[in-house]
Amino acid sequence: MKGLMQDWPLLVHTVIDHAAQYHGDREIVTRSVEGPIRRTTYKAVHSRARKIANALQSLGLGKGDVIATMAWNTDRHLEAWYGIMGLGAVCHTLNPRLFAEQLVYIANHAEDKVIFVDLTFVPIIEGIADQLSHLKHVIIMCDEAAMPDTKLKNALCYETLVNAHSDDFKWAKVDENDACGLCYTSGTTGNPKGVLYSHRSNVLHALAANNADALGMRSIDNVLPVVPMFHANAWAIAFAAPAVGASLIMPGAKMDGESIYELLDTEKVSVTAAVPTVWLMLLQHLQSSGKKLPHLNRVVIGGSAAPRFMVEAFEKDFGVQVFHAWGMTELSPLGTLGSLKAGMENLPIDKQIDIKIKQGRPVYTVEMKITDDDGKELARDGKAFGHLMVRGPAISREYVKGEGGDILDADGWFDTGDVATIDPDGYMTITDRAKDVIKSGGEWISSIELENVAVGHPEVQEAAVIGIAHPKWDERPLLIVIPAQGKSPTREDILSYMEGKIAKWWMPDDVVFVDEIPHTATGKIQKLALRQTFKDYELPTANLEKGAAE
Amino acid sequence: MKGLMQDWPLLVHTVIDHAAQYHGDREIVTRSVEGPIRRTTYKAVHSRARKIANALQSLGLGKGDVIATMAWNTDRHLEAWYGIMGLGAVCHTLNPRLFAEQLVYIANHAEDKVIFVDLTFVPIIEGIADQLSHLKHVIIMCDEAAMPDTKLKNALCYETLVNAHSDDFKWAKVDENDACGLCYTSGTTGNPKGVLYSHRSNVLHALAANNADALGMRSIDNVLPVVPMFHANAWAIAFAAPAVGASLIMPGAKMDGESIYELLDTEKVSVTAAVPTVWLMLLQHLQSSGKKLPHLNRVVIGGSAAPRFMVEAFEKDFGVQVFHAWGMTELSPLGTLGSLKAGMENLPIDKQIDIKIKQGRPVYTVEMKITDDDGKELARDGKAFGHLMVRGPAISREYVKGEGGDILDADGWFDTGDVATIDPDGYMTITDRAKDVIKSGGEWISSIELENVAVGHPEVQEAAVIGIAHPKWDERPLLIVIPAQGKSPTREDILSYMEGKIAKWWMPDDVVFVDEIPHTATGKIQKLALRQTFKDYELPTANLEKGAAE
Repeated sequence: MKGLMQDWPLLVHTVIDHAAQYHGDREIVTRSVEGPIRRTTYKAVHSRARKIANALQSLGLGKGDVIATMAWNTDRHLEAWYGIMGLGAVCHTLNPRLFAEQLVYIANHAEDKVIFVDLTFVPIIEGIADQLSHLKHVIIMCDEAAMPDTKLKNALCYETLVNAHSDDFKWAKVDENDACGLCYTSGTTGNPKGVLYSHRSNVLHALAANNADALGMRSIDNVLPVVPMFHANAWAIAFAAPAVGASLIMPGAKMDGESIYELLDTEKVSVTAAVPTVWLMLLQHLQSSGKKLPHLNRVVIGGSAAPRFMVEAFEKDFGVQVFHAWGMTELSPLGTLGSLKAGMENLPIDKQIDIKIKQGRPVYTVEMKITDDDGKELARDGKAFGHLMVRGPAISREYVKGEGGDILDADGWFDTGDVATIDPDGYMTITDRAKDVIKSGGEWISSIELENVAVGHPEVQEAAVIGIAHPKWDERPLLIVIPAQGKSPTREDILSYMEGKIAKWWMPDDVVFVDEIPHTATGKIQKLALRQTFKDYELPTANLEKGAAE
Repeated sequence: MKGLMQDWPLLVHTVIDHAAQYHGDREIVTRSVEGPIRRTTYKAVHSRARKIANALQSLGLGKGDVIATMAWNTDRHLEAWYGIMGLGAVCHTLNPRLFAEQLVYIANHAEDKVIFVDLTFVPIIEGIADQLSHLKHVIIMCDEAAMPDTKLKNALCYETLVNAHSDDFKWAKVDENDACGLCYTSGTTGNPKGVLYSHRSNVLHALAANNADALGMRSIDNVLPVVPMFHANAWAIAFAAPAVGASLIMPGAKMDGESIYELLDTEKVSVTAAVPTVWLMLLQHLQSSGKKLPHLNRVVIGGSAAPRFMVEAFEKDFGVQVFHAWGMTELSPLGTLGSLKAGMENLPIDKQIDIKIKQGRPVYTVEMKITDDDGKELARDGKAFGHLMVRGPAISREYVKGEGGDILDADGWFDTGDVATIDPDGYMTITDRAKDVIKSGGEWISSIELENVAVGHPEVQEAAVIGIAHPKWDERPLLIVIPAQGKSPTREDILSYMEGKIAKWWMPDDVVFVDEIPHTATGKIQKLALRQTFKDYELPTANLEKGAAE
């Protein structure tokens, strides 16, 4: 027996309809790429999004076409998102931080027909346009006055194009399961893989994100998403904020401490979200300038683990609540968020921070568990660590064009590739990437935990840990260290520093000193490259074992 | 092109799964029907719900069967809801306040096979059981010690039944559009009509209700739903609270001021929801006892218009935020909620209360407009009033068995039967029921506004206004008054009191005094009966017109 409720599909353009109707005057404030602050409203964004849909239609584009953006967080980027998605097309966010060859691969794989591009990134597109086999138009997101002298064929001026069209456009009739957004994961191995969001997944993700224990945005909030719209769906904010009528403060191209501080202050931002690097710059700016954060209520930190001192600085020095979040492109991206549970608000602040530095707990609509190599679920005791598996309506079931093959197990769980613990309260802590974990005698050692301990040594600038083949234990950890400027710590200095801070059997079997550790375009340590470099490395303990066996 | 996200259907039992997994120890505290306070947890509710599903299956029930409850808000009622819905069956909440013949009609129309019944209501079921043609079992919600001496055939003891089964039950595999809940509207005309909720509509409604500007519940909240689970889906609370892990405080059969106060106080309730009558009793108790509400943060008022003094008392005397809500069974039931928007928090308190006594604004997923008799949309200026039309994923598209025919217009809008204004900020105010509005010379007069003004007269106990046929104006208002105890106001007293408080042309053409005004089982004025009583009433102004015409 079916229910008798309305067939009201979950479509992202209903979000901007709602914002325009009930929060039409709420502002979107942008630090424009050209420089000055620009102010618009949801009503205007709604109108201009429909003009963009008309403009794209006039260029011969429509339902199912893939239209890319390479742009900062701005009002125009927001308009473009809703215009593209409201046309029934797919908005593909290109990450300008990727290498040119990756961008070419991705844009061709996605079959991007149009690219909306910010002034900043015109040179990138100029460099690769000839290799983009599906590209028909490049729309430069500025007005005529700011149009660059470009060698791009088919370059159009955004403002001229938008203003040449009427806002009389009826959003496309689409199914809620139709695709509307596309974002490639940069993956450390293999080709980048496309995550294809549906209208339904984005709407459900925004509804879940808006619950009061998650992002919990309200119409009275002024929200500054530093997290870029070209990265992992902007953590839901471009959908979740208009759904409740929160004002959006868009940082454009400037994410240094002073620029972010200026917006937090002048626009009375109450909620903001970014990766730790951004908050490090902000805290340094606050420290050197002696400024405070009287308006800011909540800061969401994700992308990588927030160091404890950062959480402490926000909570203790500035009275700002910190929420650690964890997610990934394949999760739309929010998986967990670290709001406190009943009773925890009465804990001493340091105990609260013990919880707040964990990656958080899943909100309803995300299912989560940890398993061993055989797929057996492990205890939620905060100690056992295993493969982090997730299910939910805003989680990938496969990549574009089947890249990477089957990615769900028989019960529909997606393997995040992370290794984590879950504590009895449901708070999850990432302990490693599955492929980086060191398997020693059937037990797992977290490379990340070893790195975190090692970098605590005052003479260590950066540390990386990889597993090296071992005749007895399968793998044992090798610690790779860049010494701090002008320092020359010894192997023994570092290992004795680590003693007592980790289990004895976790102690690295050797330490090597290097000048450089390779990183990906998005700043992660390239462990694959390190494993390649050290593939023939022989651990002293391996020799001992061999010696003993001989 | 379809998105590539997981097919994770929206099913209500995933809500209780989440609550048990991440908020397993959060309490459900019940004032039991037997008397004592009973405490359980989401983990236990989750286990017992699965035992109930097993028990029902052992009785031969399964997917698509309709299983009724006639029960107060208790832990057992919550368990029964999830057990029934998790079996893939439909949970039909019977309203014990209905007349016996209505209950018989409804239970037979719905084809109820089982009724879970609280001790309080056993006599009601005893009185009608013989007339219930589909009924197989009555499950009395108590333990063996409390089992009444009943003449019911097939009466089972709830605790014995539940405890005889294991909690090893896999929730039914159902489609998200399958029915899971059923509630009949009592309607003042025609037969009661069944509203059939789906898993999807209940989950989406709960997600929308949990946004921070709607009910905004959090895991740290202790939530007391006074609004009964047998009335309009309990305002989403039975789904929305477990979805965030909020504790539930269940009032059982006692809704008097002292009993509610006791729970608010001892259980440190932070959020509560009920109709104005309940809050009137609570405020009277607070006034007479001199008690305060130190723990309570938010009170949600709906079901009928909250009088201004009530909102003022909570906000000014007790420091509790009031949120007016409006909804109806067909809306699952939440349509609007009156949280303030940006800037309003700085208004003087009396201006804020001007907004708070309105019925609120729609949250995302509810579309709303007002139209004239020709379906033309009217201005959102806070003055024009018209038919209140709604669309959304948790709004009815038809009633059970097609009762009432087509209820959506060509564009999918449901006519609420209410007449309302919408102000420029989106706040809606109900001005009348469409069938009660008085159509005078092509313009509308709100019967409710006239009643509200008339009852302000100190010598008026209750007032009702109906339209009386008029030769020139089609209809003109007749004011029907019950004088206050021992008072005898005159027609002129009352009309002169009303002067200046309403538009001149709204002034009732006559006043009649009566001893009684008929009410429905749920306390609404039966205007149909009044119109019947006064169908031959001749207005003095009609005579004048006739005289003038002759």
